[in-house]
Amino acid sequence: MVDVSQYNGKFHLASEPAPHVLLLEFNRFWMELEDIINRVSGNSDIRVIVVGSRLAKFFTAGLDVTQPSVLAAGNDLDAARRALAIRGHLTHFQRAISTLELCTQPVICAMHGFSLGLAIDLSSACDIRLCSEDAKFGIMEVKVGLAADIGTLQRFPKIVGSGSKARELALTGREFNAAEAKEIGFVSEVVPGSRKEVLEAAIKMADVIAKNSPIAVVSTKHLMNHARDHSVQEGLDYTAAWNQAMLQSEDTIASMKARLAKKTPVYKPIGAKL
Amino acid sequence: MVDVSQYNGKFHLASEPAPHVLLLEFNRFWMELEDIINRVSGNSDIRVIVVGSRLAKFFTAGLDVTQPSVLAAGNDLDAARRALAIRGHLTHFQRAISTLELCTQPVICAMHGFSLGLAIDLSSACDIRLCSEDAKFGIMEVKVGLAADIGTLQRFPKIVGSGSKARELALTGREFNAAEAKEIGFVSEVVPGSRKEVLEAAIKMADVIAKNSPIAVVSTKHLMNHARDHSVQEGLDYTAAWNQAMLQSEDTIASMKARLAKKTPVYKPIGAKL
Amino acid sequence: MVDVSQYNGKFHLASEPAPHVLLLEFNRFWMELEDIINRVSGNSDIRVIVVGSRLAKFFTAGLDVTQPSVLAAGNDLDAARRALAIRGHLTHFQRAISTLELCTQPVICAMHGFSLGLAIDLSSACDIRLCSEDAKFGIMEVKVGLAADIGTLQRFPKIVGSGSKARELALTGREFNAAEAKEIGFVSEVVPGSRKEVLEAAIKMADVIAKNSPIAVVSTKHLMNHARDHSVQEGLDYTAAWNQAMLQSEDTIASMKARLAKKTPVYKPIGAKL
Amino acid sequence: MVDVSQYNGKFHLASEPAPHVLLLEFNRFWMELEDIINRVSGNSDIRVIVVGSRLAKFFTAGLDVTQPSVLAAGNDLDAARRALAIRGHLTHFQRAISTLELCTQPVICAMHGFSLGLAIDLSSACDIRLCSEDAKFGIMEVKVGLAADIGTLQRFPKIVGSGSKARELALTGREFNAAEAKEIGFVSEVVPGSRKEVLEAAIKMADVIAKNSPIAVVSTKHLMNHARDHSVQEGLDYTAAWNQAMLQSEDTIASMKARLAKKTPVYKPIGAKL
Amino acid sequence: MVDVSQYNGKFHLASEPAPHVLLLEFNRFWMELEDIINRVSGNSDIRVIVVGSRLAKFFTAGLDVTQPSVLAAGNDLDAARRALAIRGHLTHFQRAISTLELCTQPVICAMHGFSLGLAIDLSSACDIRLCSEDAKFGIMEVKVGLAADIGTLQRFPKIVGSGSKARELALTGREFNAAEAKEIGFVSEVVPGSRKEVLEAAIKMADVIAKNSPIAVVSTKHLMNHARDHSVQEGLDYTAAWNQAMLQSEDTIASMKARLAKKTPVYKPIGAKL
Amino acid sequence: MVDVSQYNGKFHLASEPAPHVLLLEFNRFWMELEDIINRVSGNSDIRVIVVGSRLAKFFTAGLDVTQPSVLAAGNDLDAARRALAIRGHLTHFQRAISTLELCTQPVICAMHGFSLGLAIDLSSACDIRLCSEDAKFGIMEVKVGLAADIGTLQRFPKIVGSGSKARELALTGREFNAAEAKEIGFVSEVVPGSRKEVLEAAIKMADVIAKNSPIAVVSTKHLMNHARDHSVQEGLDYTAAWNQAMLQSEDTIASMKARLAKKTPVYKPIGAKL
Repeated sequence: MVDVSQYNGKFHLASEPAPHVLLLEFNRFWMELEDIINRVSGNSDIRVIVVGSRLAKFFTAGLDVTQPSVLAAGNDLDAARRALAIRGHLTHFQRAISTLELCTQPVICAMHGFSLGLAIDLSSACDIRLCSEDAKFGIMEVKVGLAADIGTLQRFPKIVGSGSKARELALTGREFNAAEAKEIGFVSEVVPGSRKEVLEAAIKMADVIAKNSPIAVVSTKHLMNHARDHSVQEGLDYTAAWNQAMLQSEDTIASMKARLAKKTPVYKPIGAKL
Repeated sequence: MVDVSQYNGKFHLASEPAPHVLLLEFNRFWMELEDIINRVSGNSDIRVIVVGSRLAKFFTAGLDVTQPSVLAAGNDLDAARRALAIRGHLTHFQRAISTLELCTQPVICAMHGFSLGLAIDLSSACDIRLCSEDAKFGIMEVKVGLAADIGTLQRFPKIVGSGSKARELALTGREFNAAEAKEIGFVSEVVPGSRKEVLEAAIKMADVIAKNSPIAVVSTKHLMNHARDHSVQEGLDYTAAWNQAMLQSEDTIASMKARLAKKTPVYKPIGAKL
Repeated sequence: MVDVSQYNGKFHLASEPAPHVLLLEFNRFWMELEDIINRVSGNSDIRVIVVGSRLAKFFTAGLDVTQPSVLAAGNDLDAARRALAIRGHLTHFQRAISTLELCTQPVICAMHGFSLGLAIDLSSACDIRLCSEDAKFGIMEVKVGLAADIGTLQRFPKIVGSGSKARELALTGREFNAAEAKEIGFVSEVVPGSRKEVLEAAIKMADVIAKNSPIAVVSTKHLMNHARDHSVQEGLDYTAAWNQAMLQSEDTIASMKARLAKKTPVYKPIGAKL
Repeated sequence: MVDVSQYNGKFHLASEPAPHVLLLEFNRFWMELEDIINRVSGNSDIRVIVVGSRLAKFFTAGLDVTQPSVLAAGNDLDAARRALAIRGHLTHFQRAISTLELCTQPVICAMHGFSLGLAIDLSSACDIRLCSEDAKFGIMEVKVGLAADIGTLQRFPKIVGSGSKARELALTGREFNAAEAKEIGFVSEVVPGSRKEVLEAAIKMADVIAKNSPIAVVSTKHLMNHARDHSVQEGLDYTAAWNQAMLQSEDTIASMKARLAKKTPVYKPIGAKL
Repeated sequence: MVDVSQYNGKFHLASEPAPHVLLLEFNRFWMELEDIINRVSGNSDIRVIVVGSRLAKFFTAGLDVTQPSVLAAGNDLDAARRALAIRGHLTHFQRAISTLELCTQPVICAMHGFSLGLAIDLSSACDIRLCSEDAKFGIMEVKVGLAADIGTLQRFPKIVGSGSKARELALTGREFNAAEAKEIGFVSEVVPGSRKEVLEAAIKMADVIAKNSPIAVVSTKHLMNHARDHSVQEGLDYTAAWNQAMLQSEDTIASMKARLAKKTPVYKPIGAKL
Repeated sequence: MVDVSQYNGKFHLASEPAPHVLLLEFNRFWMELEDIINRVSGNSDIRVIVVGSRLAKFFTAGLDVTQPSVLAAGNDLDAARRALAIRGHLTHFQRAISTLELCTQPVICAMHGFSLGLAIDLSSACDIRLCSEDAKFGIMEVKVGLAADIGTLQRFPKIVGSGSKARELALTGREFNAAEAKEIGFVSEVVPGSRKEVLEAAIKMADVIAKNSPIAVVSTKHLMNHARDHSVQEGLDYTAAWNQAMLQSEDTIASMKARLAKKTPVYKPIGAKL
């Protein structure tokens, strides 16, 4: 059992619904996110993270209004100095969202209700997305006077299978539902029901992953991140450099032995943060 | 009202079917395209472009046969010098098609009838594609002795959601219909009816985009072009550099005020060409 | 008629089911693959390759167990030297798989039965994939203690239309069937029946491609490989450099003349290996 | 003889001091530059361009003050819209400077007197730089409140052989002389004397280049531009695609025949713009 | 006056030898480095950093031996898990060194005595290097059984002007002196004398930079970092996005006014961390 | 002692002038090169390669005239098919030259006499170049009607410290001598004397490298090749993946123990080919 209490926060609740699976339920995302995910990233007893929402109708309530606003940054400065102040906030937000992508463990995002703006940035930085049939989505930034700048425009089009739809949704800002999210490949699955059901489905999927070899799982996430941003040949080269060490793990033998003995293999934790 | 008469041409008709929306209906594409789109690109009163065809059965009639042919270029020269002459034509055509991608405003392509060869190059360089249910498509070049060289092989596979289908269609040259175009994500939507109906749908979508913040819209298109061709991290870096200025626009406040007053926000034009 | 007997091997059978189409049916893939494909790559009389399996239930039987194992490489060395020994095997396997991608001719993969691990690496390096309705797939490596390292993590996510599904399948290692393979765009088509029927469908498609201009076909494959790994502008630049020579072929004229004469055009072989 | 009068302008003088060599002497650079170089780029009778200054003490007098200033652009707009207006000017200036790099023919820059700010941007976009012993240089932008933005920061460090000096000169804005310019590799040669002598040396070098095969010369410039911005392997791939056509020129045979006959080879013009 | 006492540490001393110039003198580098530089990076009152050594004979004493060693990491784990533990240390060290490159202000490295291994990693991540005539250098890693892995192999060859020398020095591990360091462009200048004199020269150079526009200086460093790692065109695009905001600073006007009034311009701090 | 007789060939002589150092002296380079270097690459008993010439006046005699010429390839085909035939030769030559860059061991090139055309391609693909004082160099291709296409235009400018000189030499085709080769950084050192003396100097340098840790040496070459073609951050990432295995070698301990015992460390061979 992992001591998950260390990951509780003012705006979210941590639990371990299955062995080595950390469930983080937020009622307001954001400023704590970078710190929590960074700390979880170094905890090898946690092998998969599920991110969900505690709110009834929204996946996230938007930015914490008690935080200083990006838009108000450097109001009294010349436009160049104000730009640098704004950029400081932006890159901080970008870095926070990117912790989900860069953290050691895979992250499954269980979505229900409305997912607008920030919720798309955040879920696009997760590895897998599931949603309930009542989910609604929107890349709303264009409707409030700005271009999405903390990841949606970078990650969303590389996730979904239609360049035409990706641009249509980002340029119109229109709402789309669970079925359309599935059709374009944004979510892996639409789960009948709502918050409770999608969380259960995500935990079940997390449990499958948590039972696989930790060396294999963290390497697979790490190498898929690399592959997305490089040519096939560069990806192969990096993989060879990576796996020349990883193939020396005990997990392959542990897996084979368990298979022969018709048991579930037991793997050691990896003991490090990627 | 925009004075659209300046965008009329020998082979196409310009109109403004909705505020800030320019409709360009062609009966023969091509040599005028680069010049018109470049000029429109600098006109901030136009916020969205819809491109359609005036022909009954074809989306475009192919290259203007009165133009000198790429294939005949430099016929009397040695093969190296002839190659340079051919390349001159090719890069000119590539540049013309790319104006659709690089122009400031989003471009929606409303397709009906047959879209073969050039029509795929051209529509792939637009942001969004809609088609009517009678539309038929084909990457035909392979059937006439050449590899598509003005953009289809670069853009089409990055738009559609199946690498297998992209190669099958480009290597066989076979026809595919509206339903298949939708299934692979090439078009956002199949509109019941034909030319008239798909134009109406495109204008309606353009109208939605034209009502959004111009700063947000042009930034979104610009940043999505950048994101497609770079790693996620490079895209985030560029976005931070870009939005450190763009977040100083009046559009966010205009949007919020309008929302509170339950009015449609009115935005100023951007006043420049990207 | 091509003399296909030169491509027979201990573990596979070569035939020419349609003019200029080489069918390679394996009952065990691997160590001969690199050599055969390299030799076929230089044979201009072969214009399309179809790869299938002779086994009843599996697409491939996995690695040849008589071969020295990657995992046993350098067992007696320090971990650094062992890593280099392992890497030697890995890069050799990667290179073998990549011959399918780099070979001159398009490769169609006709899949039936179970395609696990290696079969996904191999088929992902082909241009087009078809499967029969009984086909089952799995990126199983994560279940046996390692991250896939001979191409799946690089190529599979660039083929399919859902980043969410690509990661789900690679991280869970779960089986997926023909319908899901089609839905995510991994295969172009699901053929009713099994081994026999999918081979027939693949040969029929190969025949269509083999009748197209060889200059157009090899250029299309070559340019699509390039386009996948570069920005749109770099792809256009390379295409202009490439086609400045290719547009000087006789195939365009041959194609036009045949069209006017209502005959099937006859094209000369290209006479070289890419 | 080339009719060089077509390249005369309000601020510069064109002449042909050696066969196929165009000398452009400016007394004020800039707004005409893009147009002239673009036109010269398409004139195959010109094989090398020498760029010099008609001023006694300065290589260039800086921006034409009758032109609208970048800094004043969009003064009355919000900071975002003003940014777009400024960017429009910047990218226009960048494009003008880049014509020197992208034009078909090699450009030799003959420098004397003071070369500050703009003069460094401009000369860095040329292929070869010579200077007279009285030449002085300075990357002055940092002293007038801005970072150099029309090419110096991109090109200068890739020309010179010391990353330490490149940053020192750009961050301090200090003057450096001809000897130091030679030592760091910015110029190929320091010519004793001043304006007259460096022009003579540049023309002499241009004459050598103009006597070489035009196919070889334009290809060499084009491929070196490509190589600078790509990996070695990508450069080799592009070169193979390029030279598969270029090696079919008559120039190799013309060169060999002339060599055997102990004559100077005579080459045909290339007839196209790159 | 900056309160520099906040930057003092167990192993180094902070002072302000000239206005807005922070001098950090180390007698042992390393574990504190990342934290200090990160904190300085956000202090706009500091405009240039000079890094020097307090030791008499060495520029740095090597890794802090009280710290856990990379080489001992994960000694009791299988080779794969040990690899991940080692990698954790490596990436931490890399990130620490990279703070010098990424920090807002330019960093001048004043080198005397022996600079071996770590000292080359560290100084290569600074913007400018000066050394005294008694300085000696060596890329020694190859002599102690490992390839340099915290930056030397990446940065050193991009700084110096000879690929042949860069490889010779890294492969032989031989010592080289001040004159050779200057000849290959590793240092900007060799200062007669030793520790005291090179510090004075560095402070003088820092003072020049600190008097330039802060907007111009931080932008120049930031854009040169970007330019080194991208193509010229990508660098120009990023610069245009960056400077569309930066050209709206007050510094250009402040600079012009001061120039007319024959006074030293006074610039406001930038107020943010890049 | 290595059995070097296996590396003798029709056109060159192999010897082992120092332990683990292979000297290859050619009197005609080329067609055997790829095969020999590939075989040496897998021989861990050889730790450094020195390449020299047995000819009195030339470093290499140019292409083997008994080989089919690139220029004559496909003379009877249409220009497109001929292009593919030419390209086949080109990429074969490129691959042969690149074996020097990609082979496991560092390669030192000892140059005397005339090094023209091919000799520059070949030596640029080596890690280190030394020359005797009588050496003369020339990038002559431009004088015989073609652009250098087997590596000079890609590698030479990334080796030397002056972009101006690199372009001048490639565009004029003029001869340059040993002193200039040293000044621009093409060679590390000019050795008084001729063939004999430069070979001695190269062997001495090779001996120093051969005494260093083999893990460190092969990793250093491999990582410097990678670093040249990637951004600094990508190079660091790859290095961390690489060294997480390499730091588990016995060489660090062997080195430390030998140092304490004041003995020369003895390292095991690496046992694999990179």
